[in-house]
Amino acid sequence: MSVRQTLKMLGLSALAITISVEWLSWLFRRLWPERSPRGPLKEVLFFPTTTTCVEHLLNPNTRSTVSCPCPCPLPHGLETPFTRLLQHLLSASVSLDLCVFAFSSQELSRAVLLLQGRGVAVRVITDKDYMVITGSQIGTLRKAGICVRHEMGAVHMHHKFAVVDGRRLITGSLNWTLTAIQSNKENILVTEEPDLVRPFIREFQQLWDSNDPARRFPSTSPLTNELPHLRDRVSSV
Amino acid sequence: MSVRQTLKMLGLSALAITISVEWLSWLFRRLWPERSPRGPLKEVLFFPTTTTCVEHLLNPNTRSTVSCPCPCPLPHGLETPFTRLLQHLLSASVSLDLCVFAFSSQELSRAVLLLQGRGVAVRVITDKDYMVITGSQIGTLRKAGICVRHEMGAVHMHHKFAVVDGRRLITGSLNWTLTAIQSNKENILVTEEPDLVRPFIREFQQLWDSNDPARRFPSTSPLTNELPHLRDRVSSV
Repeated sequence: MSVRQTLKMLGLSALAITISVEWLSWLFRRLWPERSPRGPLKEVLFFPTTTTCVEHLLNPNTRSTVSCPCPCPLPHGLETPFTRLLQHLLSASVSLDLCVFAFSSQELSRAVLLLQGRGVAVRVITDKDYMVITGSQIGTLRKAGICVRHEMGAVHMHHKFAVVDGRRLITGSLNWTLTAIQSNKENILVTEEPDLVRPFIREFQQLWDSNDPARRFPSTSPLTNELPHLRDRVSSV
Repeated sequence: MSVRQTLKMLGLSALAITISVEWLSWLFRRLWPERSPRGPLKEVLFFPTTTTCVEHLLNPNTRSTVSCPCPCPLPHGLETPFTRLLQHLLSASVSLDLCVFAFSSQELSRAVLLLQGRGVAVRVITDKDYMVITGSQIGTLRKAGICVRHEMGAVHMHHKFAVVDGRRLITGSLNWTLTAIQSNKENILVTEEPDLVRPFIREFQQLWDSNDPARRFPSTSPLTNELPHLRDRVSSV
């Protein structure tokens, strides 16, 4: 067989293989949609959840393993909707944008502080009224240097979503409170579907910008820039 | 050119075209992801929304068009997140499974009643405390014959989701109240992505079954089957 004939044979074989693969792939997707590639991450979590030890996630020095067990009486090593939520949050390596109505869960607060300690850029938007309720973790986050803004233009900033690394959306009915996690019927949807993530990124940025204290209380005086309630006093002196 | 040569030429041309189409398609998806097929419905709505007239959606006899205008002073003919929400709900032709914490919006109540009037099978699960607050529409729905169950096993039934025709999920932070729609920062996510819809269908069915009054108060007496508070009276007579 000449070189030319061999090349032609190879060309025809490649054509046959390409068409076969295309059609088999189409047929596979039609017949077994469940087994086809799922595309971007999609996960749904329901609450309330069983209370388990999460020290192995929040404190890497305390292992919940047999070799170095955590001494607490809670069940260890179980995967629950709450451990999944923590894992999704702790997967952040660049940024965490959090927009949450009520935030009083100490474990979720520890997760956010842990991320900040790792150098993840954390931004938080919350509700002006619920950020001061008993047990709120907003003060703890602010004391740790995390930038928190509160929405002033609405009756309530009722969102409960987070965007991890600008690509993973965590959203649902669940406020970041112990009651929500352990006692309420709640849902959380986690997805990396760009068409769903992008609008939430835009919403976060818009809320972040519109609730910038510097924009809210513009002033040329450095003294009164962040302390608008002092402006009247200063001007009346 | 012989027949054999012609066939080979055609084969090679087909191969070249197939590969070119594959690569152009890949390149197109990479360069213009917005224009590629999106797959199942995915939509995100943010609130608060501008208040507009929705009579043309809720009352087909009153048209908001120039030919037969609605006389109310609200803006007409605008598409808002709320009109989109109504359109998604009113697209139901078979069933509406609604699982909502607080339900006091009269317009959403009218939409549900409209669906029931059209023969759509409506099921509602709500919260035991919030179903009796002032302005709650749950009584109105029950009086109209819609089957409503309230969750008893949790501190709060805090979900806010609906499944339309067993395939379209509407979920988010938004309770079905006027404040949520007109005054709060809220989100709603609408999708027909099966991996996201299926878990919510299962959750609804599980809550529906576990809150069946007949299961909660089992009785062999027809008299006391739905009236458990009468059981003691009957037995003490």
